[in-house]
Amino acid sequence: MFLLTPVLVAVVCILLVWIFKNADGGTKRRKEEPGARAEPRPWVDEDLKDSTDVHQADKDGGEWQEPEEEVEHIPFSQTRYPEKEMVKRSQEFYELLNKRRSVRFISNEPVPMDVINNVIKAAGTAPSGAHTEPWTFVAVKDPDVKHKIREIVEEEEKINYLKRMGPRWVTDLKKLRTNWIKEYLDTAPVLILVFKQVHGFAANGKKKIHYYNEISISIACGILLAALQNAGLVTVPTTPLNCGPPLRVLLGRPANEKLLMLLPVGYPSKEATVPDLTRKRLDQIMVTV
Amino acid sequence: MFLLTPVLVAVVCILLVWIFKNADGGTKRRKEEPGARAEPRPWVDEDLKDSTDVHQADKDGGEWQEPEEEVEHIPFSQTRYPEKEMVKRSQEFYELLNKRRSVRFISNEPVPMDVINNVIKAAGTAPSGAHTEPWTFVAVKDPDVKHKIREIVEEEEKINYLKRMGPRWVTDLKKLRTNWIKEYLDTAPVLILVFKQVHGFAANGKKKIHYYNEISISIACGILLAALQNAGLVTVPTTPLNCGPPLRVLLGRPANEKLLMLLPVGYPSKEATVPDLTRKRLDQIMVTV
Repeated sequence: MFLLTPVLVAVVCILLVWIFKNADGGTKRRKEEPGARAEPRPWVDEDLKDSTDVHQADKDGGEWQEPEEEVEHIPFSQTRYPEKEMVKRSQEFYELLNKRRSVRFISNEPVPMDVINNVIKAAGTAPSGAHTEPWTFVAVKDPDVKHKIREIVEEEEKINYLKRMGPRWVTDLKKLRTNWIKEYLDTAPVLILVFKQVHGFAANGKKKIHYYNEISISIACGILLAALQNAGLVTVPTTPLNCGPPLRVLLGRPANEKLLMLLPVGYPSKEATVPDLTRKRLDQIMVTV
Repeated sequence: MFLLTPVLVAVVCILLVWIFKNADGGTKRRKEEPGARAEPRPWVDEDLKDSTDVHQADKDGGEWQEPEEEVEHIPFSQTRYPEKEMVKRSQEFYELLNKRRSVRFISNEPVPMDVINNVIKAAGTAPSGAHTEPWTFVAVKDPDVKHKIREIVEEEEKINYLKRMGPRWVTDLKKLRTNWIKEYLDTAPVLILVFKQVHGFAANGKKKIHYYNEISISIACGILLAALQNAGLVTVPTTPLNCGPPLRVLLGRPANEKLLMLLPVGYPSKEATVPDLTRKRLDQIMVTV
């Protein structure tokens, strides 16, 4: 070693550190991969995937449940209405749903639980990615639990309104006259908390991928809202920021379930008001090609 | 330089490369920041937000439209059915929707456009974050445009199935007997392409935030599916990976719109089959507290 010239030593050292550096870079890249949400995945159209599930699949590679066997395929037929009746039915369905409003003033009168069961059964008919049915609907009737939910939501919502949401959001919501006081969480006879299952479990306990779980469960919520309106009940779809984890713990839901939406359900109270909003016209939301 | 001992040269070199390496690491970190989707935002419950919009709001701070004035609030009342009728209505609604299936075999018979208009009007009654109505429904009847859509989708889907989706997804889908041949894109008399507006524009051209736009538009899709079923039409909700951008360009939609879903709509063909799947029972999707 001491026979080497200083220049040769310099070259050797630079080479050594360079090799070390590259090796280190490689480790870094490998380390980043599991959590790398920012990693470009050029083959995935970001707008057509629910990052949650694809992500999870990447992380826990080997642990996932093998899919079921192919199922039998059976003939399908459907009630066919004459054209006139189709137009009439679709018109009446539109008119029924067009009367739906988000109502924040809910009476404390009880509602028939058979109706709640039926609207949740209707929501459960929604399609889901690879038929995974990634949803749990928790219907809360117990007044104490409802009040605890109110406490959690109001505490977080107060911070949201005052600190987290920023003035623009607060002003955007002003026209709806919403704030962090959520009386309906006590008065509504039933609160439906909609939990999405970011993954499922197979019979043997292995994880099961829930493809497009957020889009799927939101579709189920759309059907739930239509079913409530059809039954003559009102609600307001709420997504209280930051309340998911404490509400999940309060209701004893497992860690693979995340709160998507909280719906207070009941009859409108006698003094209920709604903002005088209009909806976009058909030519503002539809293009025909 | 030639006066230095080899050992000193070694130390200096290691030091120099070390400094260079650290500087490089710093650049790397800074480079990563702008696109850092992984950046922790502790105040946002990840499961209760649509990252698209909040993100955009952050990026383009000053350009956003100021919200509208507070609107008037008006009394709200709703049709109230006797309890027995509520139960009956909710039961019938469930039974109607429980017959809905995702149908991949669609007849080429034309459907009345009044029905298509009505189901899209029904979808447009969905609630949306701060009443932003972030949706555009493109109804494609033109056979040439449908065929171009089929070409785009089949080309991408073939790559998806063979290369992108991974064996697990492909096997999960096998039981539904789906593949990359999408004949229904030619045969279905109408294709409805659902675009979510990741932001909107105010009258003065400034950007308008669309809160929770993905959840909102998925709810609208749920109502659309219920409306189609109510009218006696079938569809299959599809989310073709990677086809969003080329389909958006084909249909001339602006850059703030992203394809969420593609729905081929029509009557089932005579030889239509569906996989013999069952749905979860109520006690598997509902918890009462």
